[in-house]
Amino acid sequence: MAKQDKADAFVTEITPRSQDFSRWYLDVVRRAELADYSPVKGCMVIRPYGYAIWELIQQALDRRIKATGHVNAYFPLFIPESLLNKEAEHVEGFAPQVAYVTHGGGEELEEKLVVRPTSEAIIGTMYAKWVQSWRDLPILINQWCNVVRWEKVTRPFLRTTEFLWQEGHTAHETEAEAEAETLMILHLYKETVETEMAVPVVEGMKSESEKFAGALRTYSIEALMGDGRALQAGTSHNLGQNFAKAFDITFQARDKSVQHVWGTSWGMTTRLVGAAIMVHGDDSGLVLPPRIAPYQVVIVPIGRDNWRETVLPKAKEIQAELVAAGIRVTLDERDERPGWKFSEWELRGVPLRVEIGPKDIEKSAVLVARRDTREKQSVAMNGLPAAIRGLLDDVQRNLLERARQFREEHTQRADTYDAFKQMMDGRPGFVIAPWCGAADCEAQIKTETQATIRNMPIGGSAPAGGCVRCGRPAVAEAWFAKAY
Amino acid sequence: MAKQDKADAFVTEITPRSQDFSRWYLDVVRRAELADYSPVKGCMVIRPYGYAIWELIQQALDRRIKATGHVNAYFPLFIPESLLNKEAEHVEGFAPQVAYVTHGGGEELEEKLVVRPTSEAIIGTMYAKWVQSWRDLPILINQWCNVVRWEKVTRPFLRTTEFLWQEGHTAHETEAEAEAETLMILHLYKETVETEMAVPVVEGMKSESEKFAGALRTYSIEALMGDGRALQAGTSHNLGQNFAKAFDITFQARDKSVQHVWGTSWGMTTRLVGAAIMVHGDDSGLVLPPRIAPYQVVIVPIGRDNWRETVLPKAKEIQAELVAAGIRVTLDERDERPGWKFSEWELRGVPLRVEIGPKDIEKSAVLVARRDTREKQSVAMNGLPAAIRGLLDDVQRNLLERARQFREEHTQRADTYDAFKQMMDGRPGFVIAPWCGAADCEAQIKTETQATIRNMPIGGSAPAGGCVRCGRPAVAEAWFAKAY
Repeated sequence: MAKQDKADAFVTEITPRSQDFSRWYLDVVRRAELADYSPVKGCMVIRPYGYAIWELIQQALDRRIKATGHVNAYFPLFIPESLLNKEAEHVEGFAPQVAYVTHGGGEELEEKLVVRPTSEAIIGTMYAKWVQSWRDLPILINQWCNVVRWEKVTRPFLRTTEFLWQEGHTAHETEAEAEAETLMILHLYKETVETEMAVPVVEGMKSESEKFAGALRTYSIEALMGDGRALQAGTSHNLGQNFAKAFDITFQARDKSVQHVWGTSWGMTTRLVGAAIMVHGDDSGLVLPPRIAPYQVVIVPIGRDNWRETVLPKAKEIQAELVAAGIRVTLDERDERPGWKFSEWELRGVPLRVEIGPKDIEKSAVLVARRDTREKQSVAMNGLPAAIRGLLDDVQRNLLERARQFREEHTQRADTYDAFKQMMDGRPGFVIAPWCGAADCEAQIKTETQATIRNMPIGGSAPAGGCVRCGRPAVAEAWFAKAY
Repeated sequence: MAKQDKADAFVTEITPRSQDFSRWYLDVVRRAELADYSPVKGCMVIRPYGYAIWELIQQALDRRIKATGHVNAYFPLFIPESLLNKEAEHVEGFAPQVAYVTHGGGEELEEKLVVRPTSEAIIGTMYAKWVQSWRDLPILINQWCNVVRWEKVTRPFLRTTEFLWQEGHTAHETEAEAEAETLMILHLYKETVETEMAVPVVEGMKSESEKFAGALRTYSIEALMGDGRALQAGTSHNLGQNFAKAFDITFQARDKSVQHVWGTSWGMTTRLVGAAIMVHGDDSGLVLPPRIAPYQVVIVPIGRDNWRETVLPKAKEIQAELVAAGIRVTLDERDERPGWKFSEWELRGVPLRVEIGPKDIEKSAVLVARRDTREKQSVAMNGLPAAIRGLLDDVQRNLLERARQFREEHTQRADTYDAFKQMMDGRPGFVIAPWCGAADCEAQIKTETQATIRNMPIGGSAPAGGCVRCGRPAVAEAWFAKAY
């Protein structure tokens, strides 16, 4: 992969973020080799550097999913059309977006197969088979896989016809347990995204119009991107008994009566990689939080023509020392100017750059440059791993803090519709405003301002004022934003 | 998942392996909850216990793939039909087995999409875009994903329409480098399967008729199952320049000439889980090698009605101590007889069972039973983690040794066709015999004995004798077997 850079370096520089956010995003994705367009409409290739970020997110999330008692499994890619059709709202929501397999093994199939857009239908069918008694509950299963939803307009990581995700599917004895699971996972998602990706998110409940097709209630975490638009980063659904009734998932309860299970489902996707880019990136490219950075440190040897003899051996020693301390390090040995290497690794968002030249060696020190603040400091070689570890923690903290501050500066409250519209026309971000709960009012606001309700506080009491648009009694303080 | 057992325990016992190997296999898969049939023809559900085995294999293999300089990436599930058609042998080999997507997003597609049966076509297309100069080589990419090959007769793990695998795809400057990569991966596969799964394998080259569609040469590792039939456990292909020419993957060489790259591809699949079952299992069910066992140890508290008070606290202490030592442990707290629990966990193949009762506690010891040898021994609680670790290593070693011995006892040499046929009719296993290299002779042997050439020694010189069937000069000592 490393050799790839060289050819690309002559291609183009990236559009400054401040100039055109959308082009900047695409430039970063391409130039940092995170993803590439494929010959299949709407599908992208996730390149090794982008995939390594996804793997780190995936591992962090998988660890938490398992620690809370869930187990992984794998269900078929294909869903017979008749199964998808069993839950009315579900099929209505997904049918326009699905891909159909009609031929296999040289023959036309008797029944069309849907390429899974999500797996409630196939998993529900299996749960009906596996659950007999309350003793079989809860079922706490998660799946890592690819899903396909036909998209007209796509954007790498954010919206693609095929994407990767995890989908959890659980079945419970009681409604209360299902609701507790739904919220536990929502909190787990928030904690994961904030801790690992340094992306602060707002937890809340979706409105009826934005909820998952077939769910009772959908909760989401919403992040604010660098351009002030919101991005849904994860969803957790309380399915009630909807799928249990559609797929006949029943159990003999403790009182011997036959009951339907209570279900949940929840997912986070490769779109998270897009969120990391859009929250932290700057004019020079990617800025990666250390915990999800494929390389946390790049070592660049500095020196005259003979740097391979004078500097490289020490650089390799330092690399070995940092690797032994569990730090992800790359050493850039290429025959290029240091300045060229600096730009390359800034573009790729490596959190710390370690420069080492003959003078540093004399002083038994290295120069460490932070990607987030661009501060440089001399650090003694003695005890370097601990110092680097400390700096990485500091970068991680600083990125979260910076993103939190940005969100606070871009979150406003509106009491009147005029103020609301002005805010949406002006500096973008979240606008918190009372809402009456009516779908037509929500739709009207969207038409007039492009803003949608991202989510609403969980368990919040009704606000005092009237709906920001219609003045009718408000049911919630909704978080509005223009969204991806 | 644990609660699931209870209901199932009343269902059926398993067919003894000695009585009907094929039914035994299916019984173990179902009763140990490794996999289940799905409503989609030919597709299975990998249940949590089976998936946990796959995850352990996957992690062990992924670690090795990365340690040898490869990086992971992700390419689209769909391949436009025209791309698959570019390599003539490749399409001929795979076209009869593919599934076609013809409709998406409510419309008929202009071009049919193939659900990937393997990804040479889509990855080759991208490599053509990414490679310009010899400096861009080698490309060393691996992908973990699902693939679909329409199958008429299926069997859980061994042959299913959809399966999970990794597929490596590399591009090199020279033919020698590609061949070295192909063989390096073959050795890596052998080492992984032997070390992690305790399954001994025979490395070798496939005959022309058995090689991968589009490859120059295919190498494989072949394992012998408990019924004496062979199973192809992994393949590594030297693609030569076939795909490079079909997909126009060219580069400017060091001498400025334009050359096609030299390619390789290689894969191992979820079928490995089937191999582990069929190599180590016995009449009582699964026998898992510790390194791929989801639980390496099960703790079963023994005692009268009041065991929850008298024994459970100590059992939990021991569990915590073992977990802290990095051992995968489950504690069976269910309200069932110990004897019932013993059978359950034997069926599930847990390598070590730790029994703890009031008398053991008095003696500050536990009783440890090995799944492989069924030996029981009293082990002092003091220093238990180290003792358990030692026993686990011993079980792992013993299983490999036992499987190796079984294979040796079931490997024979045949010099005459009569002897060959007699061996194939009699005790099944590998038969090594000289072969002339002619496809018609190979086909004839298959028709007459059901045996196929599994593979042939790499770089071996031609044997002295004539072909076992036709007497013409032999080109290799081929390993024949009836195979899955």
